[in-house]
Amino acid sequence: MKVWDRRFPSRDSNPDIEAFNQSIDVDSFLYADEITASLAYAEALHRASILDSAELKALESGLSAVKRRIEAGEDLSGYEDIHTAVELLLIEEIGEAGKKLHTGRSRNEQVVTDEKLYLKRRAPEIRDQLLGIQTNIIRLAERHHDAVMPGYTHLQQGQCVLFAHYIMALFWQVERGKSRLNDALNRLDTLPLGVGALGGSTVALDRRYIAERLGFSRVSENSMDTVADRGFILDLLFALAHLLLDIGRFAEDFILFSSQEFGYLSIDDSIATSSSLMPQKKNPDIFELIRASAGRPFAYASQLFIALKGLPMTYNKDLQEDKVPLFRGIEESVEVLKVFRHALTRIQPNPERMRTGLNPAVFATDLVDHLTERGMPFREAHGLVGEIVAYAENEGRLLDGLSPDELRSFSAFFEEKGSDIFDPDASVKRKKTEGSTHPIQVKKQIEKAKRCIQNA
Amino acid sequence: MKVWDRRFPSRDSNPDIEAFNQSIDVDSFLYADEITASLAYAEALHRASILDSAELKALESGLSAVKRRIEAGEDLSGYEDIHTAVELLLIEEIGEAGKKLHTGRSRNEQVVTDEKLYLKRRAPEIRDQLLGIQTNIIRLAERHHDAVMPGYTHLQQGQCVLFAHYIMALFWQVERGKSRLNDALNRLDTLPLGVGALGGSTVALDRRYIAERLGFSRVSENSMDTVADRGFILDLLFALAHLLLDIGRFAEDFILFSSQEFGYLSIDDSIATSSSLMPQKKNPDIFELIRASAGRPFAYASQLFIALKGLPMTYNKDLQEDKVPLFRGIEESVEVLKVFRHALTRIQPNPERMRTGLNPAVFATDLVDHLTERGMPFREAHGLVGEIVAYAENEGRLLDGLSPDELRSFSAFFEEKGSDIFDPDASVKRKKTEGSTHPIQVKKQIEKAKRCIQNA
Amino acid sequence: MKVWDRRFPSRDSNPDIEAFNQSIDVDSFLYADEITASLAYAEALHRASILDSAELKALESGLSAVKRRIEAGEDLSGYEDIHTAVELLLIEEIGEAGKKLHTGRSRNEQVVTDEKLYLKRRAPEIRDQLLGIQTNIIRLAERHHDAVMPGYTHLQQGQCVLFAHYIMALFWQVERGKSRLNDALNRLDTLPLGVGALGGSTVALDRRYIAERLGFSRVSENSMDTVADRGFILDLLFALAHLLLDIGRFAEDFILFSSQEFGYLSIDDSIATSSSLMPQKKNPDIFELIRASAGRPFAYASQLFIALKGLPMTYNKDLQEDKVPLFRGIEESVEVLKVFRHALTRIQPNPERMRTGLNPAVFATDLVDHLTERGMPFREAHGLVGEIVAYAENEGRLLDGLSPDELRSFSAFFEEKGSDIFDPDASVKRKKTEGSTHPIQVKKQIEKAKRCIQNA
Amino acid sequence: MKVWDRRFPSRDSNPDIEAFNQSIDVDSFLYADEITASLAYAEALHRASILDSAELKALESGLSAVKRRIEAGEDLSGYEDIHTAVELLLIEEIGEAGKKLHTGRSRNEQVVTDEKLYLKRRAPEIRDQLLGIQTNIIRLAERHHDAVMPGYTHLQQGQCVLFAHYIMALFWQVERGKSRLNDALNRLDTLPLGVGALGGSTVALDRRYIAERLGFSRVSENSMDTVADRGFILDLLFALAHLLLDIGRFAEDFILFSSQEFGYLSIDDSIATSSSLMPQKKNPDIFELIRASAGRPFAYASQLFIALKGLPMTYNKDLQEDKVPLFRGIEESVEVLKVFRHALTRIQPNPERMRTGLNPAVFATDLVDHLTERGMPFREAHGLVGEIVAYAENEGRLLDGLSPDELRSFSAFFEEKGSDIFDPDASVKRKKTEGSTHPIQVKKQIEKAKRCIQNA
Repeated sequence: MKVWDRRFPSRDSNPDIEAFNQSIDVDSFLYADEITASLAYAEALHRASILDSAELKALESGLSAVKRRIEAGEDLSGYEDIHTAVELLLIEEIGEAGKKLHTGRSRNEQVVTDEKLYLKRRAPEIRDQLLGIQTNIIRLAERHHDAVMPGYTHLQQGQCVLFAHYIMALFWQVERGKSRLNDALNRLDTLPLGVGALGGSTVALDRRYIAERLGFSRVSENSMDTVADRGFILDLLFALAHLLLDIGRFAEDFILFSSQEFGYLSIDDSIATSSSLMPQKKNPDIFELIRASAGRPFAYASQLFIALKGLPMTYNKDLQEDKVPLFRGIEESVEVLKVFRHALTRIQPNPERMRTGLNPAVFATDLVDHLTERGMPFREAHGLVGEIVAYAENEGRLLDGLSPDELRSFSAFFEEKGSDIFDPDASVKRKKTEGSTHPIQVKKQIEKAKRCIQNA
Repeated sequence: MKVWDRRFPSRDSNPDIEAFNQSIDVDSFLYADEITASLAYAEALHRASILDSAELKALESGLSAVKRRIEAGEDLSGYEDIHTAVELLLIEEIGEAGKKLHTGRSRNEQVVTDEKLYLKRRAPEIRDQLLGIQTNIIRLAERHHDAVMPGYTHLQQGQCVLFAHYIMALFWQVERGKSRLNDALNRLDTLPLGVGALGGSTVALDRRYIAERLGFSRVSENSMDTVADRGFILDLLFALAHLLLDIGRFAEDFILFSSQEFGYLSIDDSIATSSSLMPQKKNPDIFELIRASAGRPFAYASQLFIALKGLPMTYNKDLQEDKVPLFRGIEESVEVLKVFRHALTRIQPNPERMRTGLNPAVFATDLVDHLTERGMPFREAHGLVGEIVAYAENEGRLLDGLSPDELRSFSAFFEEKGSDIFDPDASVKRKKTEGSTHPIQVKKQIEKAKRCIQNA
Repeated sequence: MKVWDRRFPSRDSNPDIEAFNQSIDVDSFLYADEITASLAYAEALHRASILDSAELKALESGLSAVKRRIEAGEDLSGYEDIHTAVELLLIEEIGEAGKKLHTGRSRNEQVVTDEKLYLKRRAPEIRDQLLGIQTNIIRLAERHHDAVMPGYTHLQQGQCVLFAHYIMALFWQVERGKSRLNDALNRLDTLPLGVGALGGSTVALDRRYIAERLGFSRVSENSMDTVADRGFILDLLFALAHLLLDIGRFAEDFILFSSQEFGYLSIDDSIATSSSLMPQKKNPDIFELIRASAGRPFAYASQLFIALKGLPMTYNKDLQEDKVPLFRGIEESVEVLKVFRHALTRIQPNPERMRTGLNPAVFATDLVDHLTERGMPFREAHGLVGEIVAYAENEGRLLDGLSPDELRSFSAFFEEKGSDIFDPDASVKRKKTEGSTHPIQVKKQIEKAKRCIQNA
Repeated sequence: MKVWDRRFPSRDSNPDIEAFNQSIDVDSFLYADEITASLAYAEALHRASILDSAELKALESGLSAVKRRIEAGEDLSGYEDIHTAVELLLIEEIGEAGKKLHTGRSRNEQVVTDEKLYLKRRAPEIRDQLLGIQTNIIRLAERHHDAVMPGYTHLQQGQCVLFAHYIMALFWQVERGKSRLNDALNRLDTLPLGVGALGGSTVALDRRYIAERLGFSRVSENSMDTVADRGFILDLLFALAHLLLDIGRFAEDFILFSSQEFGYLSIDDSIATSSSLMPQKKNPDIFELIRASAGRPFAYASQLFIALKGLPMTYNKDLQEDKVPLFRGIEESVEVLKVFRHALTRIQPNPERMRTGLNPAVFATDLVDHLTERGMPFREAHGLVGEIVAYAENEGRLLDGLSPDELRSFSAFFEEKGSDIFDPDASVKRKKTEGSTHPIQVKKQIEKAKRCIQNA
């Protein structure tokens, strides 16, 4: 059903064409926002003397009835889109008065309004998942505050770090993810309604009133820009893609760490799967799916970006390509976040394996520090330790197996008796800067993180 | 339901995790291929003496029963994936014998086999749409073989061309699209089945027999490569994205040409829509949606590309990200092709508007040709006509309004009396090369195109 | 040259490998930032008592000398990267003291610091171009404040709008572009330096002092996160891609509007080109290149996104893939902005062509308004005018050619005598809402825009 | 310098605009192809009686002189593009006759011709690298034909496989890569020259002769399609992206395998790097860069895809966005291939570590096979072994540590005395199918691979 049937009296429709052209399949998720916006619009029409009080009342109860019908499973498949569906159902409910709701209004502005309302409505849910993830990260950090593990660069052991420090790295990535979402939400916080099809409305609508009513802090400044723009959806999709990308890097780590070879993490049976053929398998499927998931919002963003590229002003039907990215982008990302949040409670660090996993070569920086603290210029010390490492490697021996005398044959700066150079706990304590893996710094970091959560 | 439940006896499952991890939602479209492959596998097991004849028979009738149940609407939502569903339903149907079907088989190979079978099965449908589009292009070309229109570069009128020639450009783009699909299909034409989970099967399966049975021309050469690879889906998605990109450029043209300003095409009411607010509107929605559509398979390809990036050998759960791209990629592309095919029968070229739309400046190349044919070196002639055009522009006159004398004041090579320089029909006939817009060449081109279709 | 040569004493290098692995080709653009950061780091070492005053002085004058040498064209091609180049040149300049600069420092933190400094340094240049574009938009709007043109949806004429209103739509898109850049810059405003290779520094550096010295408002919270993150570059590239996407849509409009068929804009010869073969051509190359340009930062973002996907913590060499996207992304985008800014001064609106281009059907909404103002419910009026438009179309007549009587045969609401329904100037004045195309609203909009610029 | 200067006599040029618009910076790499094509075109003009023999000779020696000048470093920066540069230099060399070369020719066709010639010219170089890679793979496989290693799915040990089998998986991925390139090359093998600006040439050129002269097997069928199409570059970029994606997955493996935790591969010092701070580091930078590299051709493809999206027929300046993707796409991909080829000769498998790395649980499938061979239905056996694995895990014991009696307590099918179930060499020999990891099958596979190389 279309609202413009009388324009093409002898239009002969083809079902493939109709199916292709309709958007009800992909925009009915906006029904509640469509009704919310319509209620505010009706009030505005009333304030502009287009509707009298009785008509307003009729519209209000009619829209409520429509909402109930939709929520009770009304079949909407015959309508062109959700805007048409609500309007025609309304007319069905209350007759003539219903025909006035669309006065001075256009679907071009309705769709943007609905989408922004939808986004504002779903945002807290995303934020809640992010807070949940952050809370679980802090729990992991606090529960294993003593565990020392190898920190990696290039997937080679670099330096000793606290597991708590390692996992807190994720906290700040999520924190930036929240910040991206907030920026996107602030930017979109302008009311579209009242701009008409493209040039504004002939009804003297009080847009600021509608904005307040619908929870927007500003009204959009230019009607043509308003109906042409889908940047707010791109912003959101980029933010989600970015977030899942960051989370996915930790998923990669968790997959590595739960391999037989690393063994730093055990994943609970409840988030593992096995094989149809190889009965021993305990597969970290969840983390593999999370690792892959960043491709989804990125792909949706690409789809929309490509659709928008080179479009003339103002509204073009190509913009309908925003529906699936918006809906699926949020839906699927929330699912990933929810699962990741839960999975964080189902991984079990193995501090013993982490400690035994430390290759003595990881203390090479500690050797360098030992020398520079005793006065050798850094680049000199770094070169010398490079030689010592190569020497041990050639000899087929481990770095901590070299005797004090052997070390002293490289430099007199090495102490005669043993030192704590090869002690993991001492190693992390040698780091002194704010933001470092020193236990006290990590504690401060966690306190700061807790304040971030409390202020959220 | 899982086939590996006994591996984790006390596994405590979380519904979000289960929902996230299962693939039945996105892989049940493969059910027929799963059954086809299973039937062939059962035969192979029989030939390898794993199943006796009675068992084979049981399996065959059991699999048929399973197929009927699925097609009758069996609820599959509780199973982990389509492979599990079919196997467990089979066991439900025929008991013990059913438990032997999976002997030496892995889901890792099943999924690739099913996907390839699915692709081979859908390919003719895509080809059919492409042939339909090509047929409609030829019809348009033949029906309007005399119509001359401006040919554009930079959206500026460049030279006169036949509409038939213009529309035939699309034919060859579609032809290359077919070629890309064929290449992809040839490349994927290797049987996966028989490679086991990753290392091969312990059952002495005759893979060449299975290949023949399932219509593959070769068997895959390396079991690890076989279960790790999803390149055949990327190939397909790239091919589809490319195809829709090319078609989308013509959609852009049709949108331009059906604007009030161009007016070269009328689109039938049946593929137009109007506005909820502006009753005069006749919008080319179909072509706008088609223009946007290339972003979809491209996005699916991006999603899969990103999922595959950096994955270790061999199978990883990340590969599950291939399901939606494969299914939706084909489904949505076929829909676009079907609609485009139909829409080609609903556009009406307006030869009169095309002819009156010709700006006399479009004949500038003809002026150049006039001069070079009379002996002026090309670059000289080209520069001179540039000056003449600038002169006419400055005078605010049209190029065909200059008198023979005025022209002769630029060069004596211009004839004293009028010529056919400004005649569109003569202009297209001045083009001589194979593949040009000369009516005879266009006719030959159409003949060649018809042979392409007949040989397809 | 490497700083780690002594680690692999008998390393036998292959020129292809070296060429592939070095980054000096793509990171030497960071030289000034490397030196700025090194100066601040030297001070911090002095404050931490690693360097005495004489050493600090030597480092400072040495770093200045290095800067001069680089700016005088020093050949850097033999060094591994810009960090190595600066350090080794410094040692060449001042000897022993130079070897202390790297104490407790890692290239992992240097590169992020340099990149952030670079971004902060280039940002004002981007902002300046955006302000220039916005200023030119306002000039165009003010210079042509009376011009009425068709406003388009679906590339079909929708309603009359002011050209000033139309062009101001771009202003707000650019404004959102600025906001995206600002958000990205705020988010990256944390000092990396002092985090060491990944675990923090063993030198008691005062990171807050360094931050202040280098103009960062905060220090990064987690050393591992700091060296692993490249999100700030992704943020920037997404923001630039988005900006060029929006600008590109107007480039599309300008190409359309400068076609013979539309004719609403003339582009100055200085930004047009012609053809090597067709001398009449006047091509809007600049706008075509701008239209295409959004693909570049988007592609750079894709490249970096793909590189980052699935990387384990913390630094991996894959991160080197950020250099070209960062440098070329900014460089090429600034070029596009600069050219677009200039081109805005080289387009000449043709108000006469805009007005004559108005198809009378564009006033259909005005007809609807006429009826609703007289009491007909909107949906009724909309349907009725749809019928009138179809009637005129069938009769082959223009909408403004129907007589009052004919109109009255559809509805008695139509006035007997003529009205201003078909007057473009009256039409734009009928729009009443804030943000609409009503001349007074447009004036207010321009005032608001000017305030945005002044406050920037 | 432009060839169309006389069109805009008072054109006042802006250096930013000129810099933005020119393409000589990005298309001069085509100079040799431009000259090759021009020589063939001159011959065709001669055959069409546009040039006499003397003129042809002059052109030929003139073009040779131009080539020499360019190769001697002629400064081309002042020209608009490579086509203009060659033509104007030619006129400089030989005067009047040079002005005839462009008769009936357009840059629109020249650029496509040059690009296709360039591609055909670079293709053997890419193929050569691929053959080199394949040869090195075979060498690795043959040199380590006995080594057994864990084969992975989900990064969990799945089954024993031969290292030779593992590495041969890469061979077939490269083989498909070659096939993609060949398909792309076959598809682009149509001559563009002779199609003029868009409508064909007014000179009666023998295009089939030109095709033969330039090594094309067919002539393009439609002039408008010919100048509008850039699909052949997209094809190439997709093929390269795909290739690097596949190679990058093995780079990931090599990074994993050369970690301290896996230890299956040693990489030679010559392809490793170390750290500026951590002297012990031996980083697999080369493989990290290769892992990241797939993002580049993918990004170039995205850039071009976005540029092409929604472009009207035929040539538009947006197509200039193909130059960087074409040139850099090939250049950078060849570099990656070259480095990967070399790196394959610099990795040293450690068969001992591979063998000791095998976790006994990897033999679980062998246990299942043991049971099914003795008559237990597969699904039953699979479930039972799942229980055994869980039992061992709970007991904190390894699977091969269970006594025959313990096993028999699960099933009487287990033999009383020891078997070769836990023997890696026996395990790989249990696989029987073509394409499996059985040593004989692997040998056959290698033979087949060698034939592929010989026939290439």
